[in-house]
Amino acid sequence: MGAEDLFVGRLRALIADGGDQGAASGVRVGPGDDGAVVATSGRDMVATTDLLVEGVDFLPGGNLERLGRRAVSVNLSDAAAMGARPRWFLLSIVLPEGRGEEDALAICRGAIARGREFRASLAGGDLSRGPCLVLSVALWAELEAGPLTRGGGRPGDALYLTGFPGRAAAGLRVAKAARAGRDPGRVTPGDRELLDAYLDPEPRVAFSLALAAAGIAHAAIDVSDGLGIDAGRLAAASGARAVLERDRIPVSPSLDAWARREGEDALACVLAGGDDYELLFAAPEDAERDIARLAGPLPVTRVGRLEAGSGAFLRDGGSERAIERLGYDHFHREGRE
Amino acid sequence: MGAEDLFVGRLRALIADGGDQGAASGVRVGPGDDGAVVATSGRDMVATTDLLVEGVDFLPGGNLERLGRRAVSVNLSDAAAMGARPRWFLLSIVLPEGRGEEDALAICRGAIARGREFRASLAGGDLSRGPCLVLSVALWAELEAGPLTRGGGRPGDALYLTGFPGRAAAGLRVAKAARAGRDPGRVTPGDRELLDAYLDPEPRVAFSLALAAAGIAHAAIDVSDGLGIDAGRLAAASGARAVLERDRIPVSPSLDAWARREGEDALACVLAGGDDYELLFAAPEDAERDIARLAGPLPVTRVGRLEAGSGAFLRDGGSERAIERLGYDHFHREGRE
Repeated sequence: MGAEDLFVGRLRALIADGGDQGAASGVRVGPGDDGAVVATSGRDMVATTDLLVEGVDFLPGGNLERLGRRAVSVNLSDAAAMGARPRWFLLSIVLPEGRGEEDALAICRGAIARGREFRASLAGGDLSRGPCLVLSVALWAELEAGPLTRGGGRPGDALYLTGFPGRAAAGLRVAKAARAGRDPGRVTPGDRELLDAYLDPEPRVAFSLALAAAGIAHAAIDVSDGLGIDAGRLAAASGARAVLERDRIPVSPSLDAWARREGEDALACVLAGGDDYELLFAAPEDAERDIARLAGPLPVTRVGRLEAGSGAFLRDGGSERAIERLGYDHFHREGRE
Repeated sequence: MGAEDLFVGRLRALIADGGDQGAASGVRVGPGDDGAVVATSGRDMVATTDLLVEGVDFLPGGNLERLGRRAVSVNLSDAAAMGARPRWFLLSIVLPEGRGEEDALAICRGAIARGREFRASLAGGDLSRGPCLVLSVALWAELEAGPLTRGGGRPGDALYLTGFPGRAAAGLRVAKAARAGRDPGRVTPGDRELLDAYLDPEPRVAFSLALAAAGIAHAAIDVSDGLGIDAGRLAAASGARAVLERDRIPVSPSLDAWARREGEDALACVLAGGDDYELLFAAPEDAERDIARLAGPLPVTRVGRLEAGSGAFLRDGGSERAIERLGYDHFHREGRE
């Protein structure tokens, strides 16, 4: 029996471990055959995929279980942006020199645990060797309503945002500073919150399903590349222009405190920082109360609106500026690498 | 609009180009949203995924369209091994320094064209940067019958094999010799056939669907790691032992000629070489005529049988040897890298 077959045996044990979802998962054939077999309901499905490359999409040397969680979370977030219920995922890993089966299993362990929290089962994957660690997740989700696409917004819709984006971009900088050995003693509770936002983002699955079922939202996108950029994408797909109101953009106290201390621009983190995975969606202005009811404890803020036209703009009092001209391009690139 | 959005626009044009499969493809939302939306029939689905890493799973510097084709082919082959009809795939690409959008589009072009030949549509994907080229494909296929798993074989079944495996392993060596500048003038028509088997393998989709529909096969696997290794996997999953008969193992004239000329072992290429993507399946001995009828022009050879016990063996006249003891391990590793 080759190394690959032994790995599959250990992976299966991991899946069975701690409460197999069994028949309820719909996985009829799991890892170890040429493909997985899953039972579908006949509803439309959403397929998403995300690559995470060491040194580009994540910092080298971090905790591998958490990395596995994150790889699944970013796909769960894509499913949430479509209003779909996560069901199964495939996880492929490129292992570099010096990394072995234990490392792959640690990644799988985190991925399986994260999937389970959202009832999504690991169905299969692939392993290869290469010059750096790469994770590739493909996730399938089921549409019970919807889908929520980027393109359904219309002029007059309000734009709503979950949570507090910008924290992940700040968290990445906190992580880099810690790696560089700067100020190791200065990771405050607020900084810890920023780090967690970066390292272990929370996909908005439950809220998205409630939103899709209620039929309130016209369009949605997950904020993975910054609120300004992703608002522009939603607007472009909807054939409208997005206007964000500066006064309404939520800045978490942790981000605000970090930005003041470090001399950074908190608004830049929100508008152009990546890796947050909050939801931005277009819905009628008068739906605000219904949305708050669906969201429960999750904060949802009305941050702007769609208007006739094109582009993404920041309105600050009487003035309005194109977000792509605010000079955040370098920020975004820096934020990733 | 960022580079990512422009890329998606060009990708969509590529998909529409040369005959969009349109509504028949079942793709309701293609590339450019947070996820793809596909229409399922309610039948069970097969999910497969394969990673191809530059320098490990393919030689650097080759034709990118052909590489895109191959990435899809290996997934189509996994679907074929399960007896499933290919429907959609996701394609993610890690681009190294010096590679750009044109390169990614060339890969996509090959992948889309290859998918189309088997009615599988590109539904989405992801792009990132990294130290070398990596392709990750996840493919969904629909079960109209079956599935054919590795585990359904039983003692007494005959083992049948499509085509002529071993050619790809020889083709890889021909490609390496050409890259090393050895004997550039000596690529004979036979060598060309070997090269093609490696660079552009033919997934056995149509035959597999016919086989699954006829309900003849008890178990199947695609021969991606050598006939000996994959026969052992099928046998292990089926709780049986595989016996391959040396006299029955098909060796293509091109492989035979190459091996004689280069002083190589053709049988080692067949048993332990990878990347062929032929089908090995277990079915009753008396089904040989029915199988030949289903296969049409595709050669299918009865190469051995399943017996009670475990392991994979080569029977040569009166003697029988465990395939893992034939000393091909190094061959396999070498064959890949």
